[in-house]
Amino acid sequence: MSILIKDASIVLTQNSERNQLRNVDIYIEDNFISEVSEKPVSVEAEHVINARGMIVLPGLINLHTHVPMTLLRGYGDDMVLEDWLNSRIWPVEAKLDKDSISAGTRLGLLEMIRSGTTCFLDMYFFEDIIAEVAREVGMRAFLGFSLLDFGTPEYKYEELFPACENFLRRWVKSDLIKPVVAPHAAYTCSAETLQKSLDLAEKFDVLLHTHCSETRNEVYSVMEKTGLRPVGVFKKHGLLCERTILAHCGWITKNEVSEISRSGSKVAHCPVSNMKLATGGFAPVPEMLMENVPVGLGTDGAASNNTLDMFETMKFTALLHKHHRWDPCVLPAQQVLDLATISGAKCLGIDDKVGSIEEGKLADIILVNLRRPWFTPVHDPVSLLVYSARCSDVYATIVNGGLLMLDNRFYTLDYSRVIKEAQIQAYNLTKS
Amino acid sequence: MSILIKDASIVLTQNSERNQLRNVDIYIEDNFISEVSEKPVSVEAEHVINARGMIVLPGLINLHTHVPMTLLRGYGDDMVLEDWLNSRIWPVEAKLDKDSISAGTRLGLLEMIRSGTTCFLDMYFFEDIIAEVAREVGMRAFLGFSLLDFGTPEYKYEELFPACENFLRRWVKSDLIKPVVAPHAAYTCSAETLQKSLDLAEKFDVLLHTHCSETRNEVYSVMEKTGLRPVGVFKKHGLLCERTILAHCGWITKNEVSEISRSGSKVAHCPVSNMKLATGGFAPVPEMLMENVPVGLGTDGAASNNTLDMFETMKFTALLHKHHRWDPCVLPAQQVLDLATISGAKCLGIDDKVGSIEEGKLADIILVNLRRPWFTPVHDPVSLLVYSARCSDVYATIVNGGLLMLDNRFYTLDYSRVIKEAQIQAYNLTKS
Repeated sequence: MSILIKDASIVLTQNSERNQLRNVDIYIEDNFISEVSEKPVSVEAEHVINARGMIVLPGLINLHTHVPMTLLRGYGDDMVLEDWLNSRIWPVEAKLDKDSISAGTRLGLLEMIRSGTTCFLDMYFFEDIIAEVAREVGMRAFLGFSLLDFGTPEYKYEELFPACENFLRRWVKSDLIKPVVAPHAAYTCSAETLQKSLDLAEKFDVLLHTHCSETRNEVYSVMEKTGLRPVGVFKKHGLLCERTILAHCGWITKNEVSEISRSGSKVAHCPVSNMKLATGGFAPVPEMLMENVPVGLGTDGAASNNTLDMFETMKFTALLHKHHRWDPCVLPAQQVLDLATISGAKCLGIDDKVGSIEEGKLADIILVNLRRPWFTPVHDPVSLLVYSARCSDVYATIVNGGLLMLDNRFYTLDYSRVIKEAQIQAYNLTKS
Repeated sequence: MSILIKDASIVLTQNSERNQLRNVDIYIEDNFISEVSEKPVSVEAEHVINARGMIVLPGLINLHTHVPMTLLRGYGDDMVLEDWLNSRIWPVEAKLDKDSISAGTRLGLLEMIRSGTTCFLDMYFFEDIIAEVAREVGMRAFLGFSLLDFGTPEYKYEELFPACENFLRRWVKSDLIKPVVAPHAAYTCSAETLQKSLDLAEKFDVLLHTHCSETRNEVYSVMEKTGLRPVGVFKKHGLLCERTILAHCGWITKNEVSEISRSGSKVAHCPVSNMKLATGGFAPVPEMLMENVPVGLGTDGAASNNTLDMFETMKFTALLHKHHRWDPCVLPAQQVLDLATISGAKCLGIDDKVGSIEEGKLADIILVNLRRPWFTPVHDPVSLLVYSARCSDVYATIVNGGLLMLDNRFYTLDYSRVIKEAQIQAYNLTKS
């Protein structure tokens, strides 16, 4: 496939100089960005996109989600976490099957593609189904196979590790899909589960993803059981290492930030979900950045967000930290855009391949249409993206050189069918 | 004018029972809601809107903004408040004239209409120009004539009160436009200015709008000057009364909440602006509601938000208070939708006329298009509106029975011209 983006009004390259280019042509050949030029590029291309009046930027990277949970958007808001899990989420999750997972994944992918996300890190059940769907749709996906002491809706505990190994073997050489080992959390995984997880991740040389210190309860219950806080548990069992991405880190200490920094672990910050679930804590991102911890942004599942909107997550990130520190200067717009693009790529170990618009990189690119009242005037395009853009302003989404959406037309998903099947599956899951 | 809304999938009436109706026709004749019926309404109408797949709800009420500041969206983000005011906002405001005010107002109205706001409470300079534009465009507007000890970009101090009186006289009998007396704040208004403001508001029997305890600095500087906190100053001079709407109330005490409650004053909560400016404080809305203080939501100006998006403000409201109190149950979706509709109307003293969809009320109504990935599934329509809707999902905006926007087409504004003139004026104001 080839795509020619013509006459883009503004290109936020997100390269190391954070160059902003004006009136640029971008030529995409096969999977790669072949040319970025301030002179007109004259080539034939399968798709020619007129990008006048558009901002072009790297696709957004969602560093923590549970994509099939999109089916549970709005199913039990405004509830105490324990009630919500006990009376809503867990009973429904027990009913999950391949059809509901498939429908939920398609719905989530539809929303991500519509809203400018080109890569995501998932952690859920039936991850093999999610991988099939994501590959078919053409999304870049890091897919965490969940490991818990109690088993999952898909496997009993004794079946889990062999199944995970099969999953890893099946997908480890895939192009768009990268398998990830995902021990759920320190409070749901024994020392044995954690160690076997690490063994598998090392054996296949893949990433490891886990929840870490999302709530105070979690921290205290882990301390009661092990005498250590979650970060300490992960450290003890060797999981605090370069291949690990920790979701949330809402209740961690200053020393733990330093531990994470020394270990090379990464952090997925999920402010909207943390605020909606009222966990009280959220990752101390400015302190983490000061200690050179790689940080990316995640929406968490739509069940606790209630969207997969990374634009919204950027604005919440900026505002939550400014508010918390009484400092409007902290996390300025450019830094927040970095978190959602190149820094997310760094967390996934693919910043040499995606996360910026540079010749030779893979073409994960989105276009944002400036023809909206909230994009006038253009004092600063980065500010507009972080503080004013709505996810629905995304005009085109390109992943790995493939055009997935243009002007609300989807190339690899049947919009009406996805919506209909999601509605049916959501109804079946939640009817009593 | 007559409008027939056909077959609305869901109507959130926001009436006293908060009824949700399905498959409803709504007939609007002249300025009023003439019929709301679950049986098909067969009448001729100037506009017939097919509302299948739509949620219909009362228009959103923005209870605090500075509409011409839309020109300064993104002009100086991530700065300390004092620097921002000194080096960016005030130098530009000194250059304001009728043309820039007119262009900024049109831009702000365009954004409000696009995003489902049907009524707003403003406070700025050149309010007479704002009134002319708002009337021409057909928006419901409560317009605060700013009064400050130092004068304004439009008037010297000695000219202010006669000009304000002229403004009040000119607009007090207007239909859509309601003039408001707006002493800026306790730290910018002397006792004399406050008392003369109150006299004028009483003479013309209009609302009074002021900033109250937005920042800690403000509270301390007022205490140093007067020995009282801002709420105390307003009380002393009689401004703490039923006709007063206090913006922000970010740094108030529990006793002050009770004072406000006893006085009958209202509060405009502006979470996005408070968080972006990192004032640290924000209105204690749950405590205010417990004491029966009428509360509405405001965006504040786009210079500190950076949008006029009331959907975003609803989500920030819900999440900020949940987060702050570590309580996900506080400010549930229905209560937040109330703040943005019927409760905003109550603050303005017009809840008998707008703020809900009921026969005989004025037709301030919006339609939201559910054909978006983030509106599936429909477990709870109120949750979808507060936690998932993007302002761009608004399909139609009706004010006072007049169709202002349908499917991104504007009936009383020339989109391209508004954008172009705003760009020119913004450039002229900010070039050095």
